[in-house]
Amino acid sequence: MTTPENKTSTPTIGVFDSGFGGLTVLRALLNHMPHARFAFIGDTARLPYGSKSQRTIARYAAQSARFLVNEQGAEFLVIACNTASALALDAIKQAVPVPVLGVIEPGAEAARAASRTGDVLVIATDATVQSHAYAAACRTRGLRALEKACPLLVPLVEEGWTETGAFAAQAASAPPQVAASPQVAVTAEVVRIYLTELNAEAAALGMNPDTLVLGCTHYPLLRSLIERAVPSGMRVIDSAESAAEAAVRLFGQQNSEDLPSAPQSLRCFATDSVDKFERLGSRFLGRPVGKVELVDLGG
Amino acid sequence: MTTPENKTSTPTIGVFDSGFGGLTVLRALLNHMPHARFAFIGDTARLPYGSKSQRTIARYAAQSARFLVNEQGAEFLVIACNTASALALDAIKQAVPVPVLGVIEPGAEAARAASRTGDVLVIATDATVQSHAYAAACRTRGLRALEKACPLLVPLVEEGWTETGAFAAQAASAPPQVAASPQVAVTAEVVRIYLTELNAEAAALGMNPDTLVLGCTHYPLLRSLIERAVPSGMRVIDSAESAAEAAVRLFGQQNSEDLPSAPQSLRCFATDSVDKFERLGSRFLGRPVGKVELVDLGG
Repeated sequence: MTTPENKTSTPTIGVFDSGFGGLTVLRALLNHMPHARFAFIGDTARLPYGSKSQRTIARYAAQSARFLVNEQGAEFLVIACNTASALALDAIKQAVPVPVLGVIEPGAEAARAASRTGDVLVIATDATVQSHAYAAACRTRGLRALEKACPLLVPLVEEGWTETGAFAAQAASAPPQVAASPQVAVTAEVVRIYLTELNAEAAALGMNPDTLVLGCTHYPLLRSLIERAVPSGMRVIDSAESAAEAAVRLFGQQNSEDLPSAPQSLRCFATDSVDKFERLGSRFLGRPVGKVELVDLGG
Repeated sequence: MTTPENKTSTPTIGVFDSGFGGLTVLRALLNHMPHARFAFIGDTARLPYGSKSQRTIARYAAQSARFLVNEQGAEFLVIACNTASALALDAIKQAVPVPVLGVIEPGAEAARAASRTGDVLVIATDATVQSHAYAAACRTRGLRALEKACPLLVPLVEEGWTETGAFAAQAASAPPQVAASPQVAVTAEVVRIYLTELNAEAAALGMNPDTLVLGCTHYPLLRSLIERAVPSGMRVIDSAESAAEAAVRLFGQQNSEDLPSAPQSLRCFATDSVDKFERLGSRFLGRPVGKVELVDLGG
């Protein structure tokens, strides 16, 4: 907890996800904010949120938000979960007295900045697509969005059938690589099938999309495969990266230059499945997650 | 509810699953028992069971079991869910005063009957493998079992990336087919990768497996793909089919020949997600599931 006695210019950022996919958002935040304290909680005991009612999701997310603010001293919250961002952002804002940022608005804003045609594609989980939160956020920005659920991508990432160092090869200019293994070849083919279907649907609707939004926190691990599968010239927007950049703009300004800054620090919490979190989390975070602490948020 | 006034020789069988994969077990039961009433409940509001504690699974499964017996008049229960069979069978037996059959013992028994070498392979979900219930059931029968989790197969089946009429092409003698679509080719390749890995692990352990158990109720929809991917001569055991055959042996005998028999009937219940159940269920059941009734089992 930050008290007046130990106050520094080092902000404490709370990051919340229903699982550990949001570690890709945390990863981007760590890169952008070298002098912040971070507390991450994954509500792994109660995932997946996608199959639950809006009321239940709001209640669960508010519990995690209060834990980050009241127990960990978070001064800002980043909701690194597309489902909670889509369905529970208002409830979280009401539950805690600190600024709260979701992943959907920054993703849509980045799409607005990137798109020239005004036609945007969004890939996400079934729950996020059913909420149509990206389509709504795009519409308020004058964009037309076509969303597609890609249910196989999360299990492929969690199975580890991705390229090693996919993060390192993020740049669109990265040279095409030969698929390293039969497993990665499967993932590349699944990505190709989904994007072919999505582009065909867009063409049938008379759209001319030039931007693809990755609307799931697992998808950054597939970014280089996705960039090789999209039509030439299509921009790929990573909503995890967009959310981190928005967080820097919103929260970075609030640092006082007059106070000493502390080194970056990170604590990770989970409500269950600490083993899976520790085992898979490092691939999402791009560095060891270290010891994950188990917390009980109650009912 | 079966009362003495309307008693016939028609038994009422209750079938329980955490989702709708157990419809493959129900499908086999419908084929084997043309004069039974069936009530199926999928506890879709609370799936997946695999990530929950044994105590929670036992409590949830007992609620569904009591619904089938007390509200639907089931005289026998089939637990068409590998996780619940592995972790909650005793709790269910204590919760209801009727005979209860799981899917794991019949699958292991069929493997015992099929295997000459005594070495058996089992593919299942992560939760079922972690319970080691198949290995234990095989060990008591003098078999050595090697289990492998195949987390991508359930989402591939639920995405519909399977062969149309896979059930019709179940026979091992079915001629190899050219994969009908890029989607089915992906699934075939995933099956090949998993089985290649499993056979390599078995060889490294000095095993000589001749039997493969499908330890997940989704896998019968992949049976023809799996049969084409196993080494020549390997028997494929479908635990859904084995459970149905065991149910006929156990429950079929209890019909009285002196009473009239009623035509087969079926009611399906779910605790949530009726849409997905109705949309996907027919592929598992091999016939229309009809109207799925929503029930609230409480906490």
